[in-house]
Amino acid sequence: MAKISDRVRGLTAGMGDGWGVYHRARALKAQGVAITDLTIGEHDIRTDPAILDAMQASARGGHTGYAALAGTGDLRDAIAARVTERTGMRTTRENVLVTPGGQAALFSALMGVMDPGAEVALPDPYYATYPGTVRAAGGVPVPVPTRPEDGFQPRAEALSAAIGDRSAALMVNSPNNPTGAVYGAETMDGIAEVAQRHDLWLISDEVYDTQLWSGGHLSARALPGMADRTLVVGSMSKSHAMTGSRIGWLVGPPAMIADLVVLATHTTYGVAGFVQDAALHALRLGPEFEARIAAPFRRRRAACLELLGQAARIRAHPSAGAMYLMLDIRATGLSATAFAERLLDERRIAVMPGESFGQAAAGHVRVALTLPDDALLNAFDSMLSFAEEIMA
Amino acid sequence: MAKISDRVRGLTAGMGDGWGVYHRARALKAQGVAITDLTIGEHDIRTDPAILDAMQASARGGHTGYAALAGTGDLRDAIAARVTERTGMRTTRENVLVTPGGQAALFSALMGVMDPGAEVALPDPYYATYPGTVRAAGGVPVPVPTRPEDGFQPRAEALSAAIGDRSAALMVNSPNNPTGAVYGAETMDGIAEVAQRHDLWLISDEVYDTQLWSGGHLSARALPGMADRTLVVGSMSKSHAMTGSRIGWLVGPPAMIADLVVLATHTTYGVAGFVQDAALHALRLGPEFEARIAAPFRRRRAACLELLGQAARIRAHPSAGAMYLMLDIRATGLSATAFAERLLDERRIAVMPGESFGQAAAGHVRVALTLPDDALLNAFDSMLSFAEEIMA
Ligand SMILES: Cc1ncc(COP(=O)(O)O)c(C=O)c1O
Ligand SMILES: Cc1ncc(COP(=O)(O)O)c(C=O)c1O
Repeated sequence: MAKISDRVRGLTAGMGDGWGVYHRARALKAQGVAITDLTIGEHDIRTDPAILDAMQASARGGHTGYAALAGTGDLRDAIAARVTERTGMRTTRENVLVTPGGQAALFSALMGVMDPGAEVALPDPYYATYPGTVRAAGGVPVPVPTRPEDGFQPRAEALSAAIGDRSAALMVNSPNNPTGAVYGAETMDGIAEVAQRHDLWLISDEVYDTQLWSGGHLSARALPGMADRTLVVGSMSKSHAMTGSRIGWLVGPPAMIADLVVLATHTTYGVAGFVQDAALHALRLGPEFEARIAAPFRRRRAACLELLGQAARIRAHPSAGAMYLMLDIRATGLSATAFAERLLDERRIAVMPGESFGQAAAGHVRVALTLPDDALLNAFDSMLSFAEEIMA
Repeated sequence: MAKISDRVRGLTAGMGDGWGVYHRARALKAQGVAITDLTIGEHDIRTDPAILDAMQASARGGHTGYAALAGTGDLRDAIAARVTERTGMRTTRENVLVTPGGQAALFSALMGVMDPGAEVALPDPYYATYPGTVRAAGGVPVPVPTRPEDGFQPRAEALSAAIGDRSAALMVNSPNNPTGAVYGAETMDGIAEVAQRHDLWLISDEVYDTQLWSGGHLSARALPGMADRTLVVGSMSKSHAMTGSRIGWLVGPPAMIADLVVLATHTTYGVAGFVQDAALHALRLGPEFEARIAAPFRRRRAACLELLGQAARIRAHPSAGAMYLMLDIRATGLSATAFAERLLDERRIAVMPGESFGQAAAGHVRVALTLPDDALLNAFDSMLSFAEEIMA
């Protein structure tokens, strides 16, 4: 066979071996073994039929040809209006690029902010695709460890220390997957200060902006001096339970958006018009709908935290957002990977070892709150008794 | 504003100025001016309702979560079966990656066959996105002029002369957009020989494989020694009138496909499951359906060629495939851009100057056969009388 490119071969280089558990859980499920799967960030409900009916109405109405490459005017307007309303930043369609999902928005942003060989600093723990996405775009990911004691909020000094001559961008995510951290004003100011001092782009992944359990969501783009150096990643996946529809967006300076439309001409050639119309319909359902999609996670988080409150050996980070809980299992004496491997073997429960998301979440496991309440609480019960047994 | 990457800024560097006509035509249409638009490779019919109903049945049936990243097993199997049947090459799902469109397949293939700085040789004229797609993937496009006298078939000597130390791949397209050329056995053998002699990948864009007006379609992957170095690009866009659905594929060696699945995790995170199910339904409609979608272009090509047979100053290349005619307008004494600009001004007909597709189609315009027969023949009539007037 002719040679496969080094970059594609090396995409997941050094990726935490926490993924062994995930793959083993999938294999077991494929064999028909009943697994309680708490690994994946996906709702236990399907996309709302009303949204799917809007899609079908659009498709049957004839919106089946190539759609405008930047996104339809209506959808760009609706996204701009939502951003304006939530952040107070005047935003128009010229600020918006519609992408086939949040992941594509992340990749597109990285292609726009740096040339091959540049570095991108990102707080660790991070969403698992981040280092590979930086590499796919030809860059070098530079993880910046955060600390459990800081609630996994990145410190400005640590970020600043990771910046060098070749740095092009910071890439942050709040509300955070996997930690549930929501960056406060101090953290955000630090990020903005570092970005401006070093003339960096900020890629701000805000796909969990509707899943906020305490505190308010701050959008970095709204901070003074940041609008011209921030690209905000959004997605319908988590906010509207539309993971499978593959639609998201980037919001940023018009000149950058215009160049990324040209890039999209060469990477994806746009997003299906009927999917865009479905997203438009979904956005028009308004904040009440978004709150309804987020509600189960809010409820489950509270119930799980209450249950864990009585536990001796598993401590929850009091996540402020997103559909996961990060559990500190260091008191069990096991590594997170060993804990997760044994939990899968002995209780048929699959969770993600912290090592799957970088180095800084060692000793932790991430649990997705993506099962109906009863099943989820049973799994937590089982996990707790498992932890007690280890100790005995 | 922080700095936009050089690569994104330079994507369309040196792109033929033929695009001025295209953009002006769009602007005129937006102003409400009636334009006969023969610029775009898109059917004048919509996607078949049966396909859309299959999509809706899938979506309402619950296929709204993240789908398998390589594509669903069923769709990969169906694509593999179609390739096996058409080429005689045993093909399985391990050879298939489902992508959000043929354009995404082209980009993905380029990411896989080369590292930044490598060169990709491509016959000129070429599909307009090719050079930018090579650049987006960090490569250097090396156009290889073909000649009208050769029916725009690339000669092995010319391809070979374009290969250097940094060459990683050839990128070809048959049936060809814009020329309508269908590569014959001699051309294909030459391509295969050059690829093997220089240990290159071959990216073979076969999205028009159902639009064949004379001769047979040869798939380069089926030639001896080529399966391990060929990536075939396919798409539902042209064969099934599904341009707006954004779904296509790559077929290639399993090891490469596996690595490109990892790449897709970082660039797109897969294709909507309900769109994949729509494509599966469409493929199962079989060759009769594909022939039905291709039929109007077959009919219009024949009618237009007949009309042009009597013309003095416009000579058609006897296209053997695809939904366009390439017209030699050199006898008018105008450049193709001047011809197209005046045709737009004086007759309100928009066609693409050959310069939009590289250097080698200077003196030609590409006409898309994408209007109902009457309107199309009227436009050809008008174009012919326009050419006569110029001469007078
Ligand atoms: C932090 C974060 N960003 C981006 C994404 C990408 O989501 P999508 O591509 O479905 O929009 C995810 C999905 O899990 C995520 O957790
Ligand atoms: C030669 C060729 N390749 C690829 C494409 C991409 O088509 P799509 O991305 O719609 O599959 C086109 C579209 O015009 C084309 O003409």
